[in-house]
Amino acid sequence: MSDALSLPPVGGVVTQATIDAYAELSGDFNPLHVDPEAAAASEFGGTIAHGPIALQALFRTLTEGLGVEALPPGTQIAVTYRAPVRPGDVVTAHAAEPLARDGGELTFEAACVNQDATQVLSARVTLPG
Amino acid sequence: MSDALSLPPVGGVVTQATIDAYAELSGDFNPLHVDPEAAAASEFGGTIAHGPIALQALFRTLTEGLGVEALPPGTQIAVTYRAPVRPGDVVTAHAAEPLARDGGELTFEAACVNQDATQVLSARVTLPG
Repeated sequence: MSDALSLPPVGGVVTQATIDAYAELSGDFNPLHVDPEAAAASEFGGTIAHGPIALQALFRTLTEGLGVEALPPGTQIAVTYRAPVRPGDVVTAHAAEPLARDGGELTFEAACVNQDATQVLSARVTLPG
Repeated sequence: MSDALSLPPVGGVVTQATIDAYAELSGDFNPLHVDPEAAAASEFGGTIAHGPIALQALFRTLTEGLGVEALPPGTQIAVTYRAPVRPGDVVTAHAAEPLARDGGELTFEAACVNQDATQVLSARVTLPG
């Protein structure tokens, strides 16, 4: 892990196919995620992504930025979900320079935003030392 | 949302097919997740699941237990990753009775454990009022 951390934004489009594939692997087939007609009648007005999907860009920017294959055990991620992710949204994660470096621990503020610059989630990430 | 919350454990098996499908939808093809031979030579000794996969049981026990289709915007989840999830693991989420009910907010302690009763993650979840 380099001292001069630079975490380039990483993002991608979330499609209904992404959501349907996630439903298959997680077993969560709530109509709000997979049934466009039922979801259109809900308060959200259409399907939305499962919560873990909104995190995928954050995990990618952290692992790619840190040059690691996976976040190590002991990693803490405090997420606040702020807005739904909808099919067609391009979700990009941004991570700031580390806030604190305490005995080897690194703490970052991060966020995932959509193509309208709306935060879909904010997060504070602490990596163990 | 009922006053007498009861959040039955929800879980399922995570297979290499689950991990491969998640790699496709997230674009995260790190060998530690998708290349059993390369992963066998790593410190983990085999492939491990992406971080968001370990959360799927938690999301399901919360939504199924609360009788909602999705967690609402404003939901906060503070996760500590404690051990990797490996192909074949059965990951089950448990959520305790609410810790605090503050102006309609609900806070739960929760954890996902594997078939050996090892915590793969612990979490504190706060739902907005």
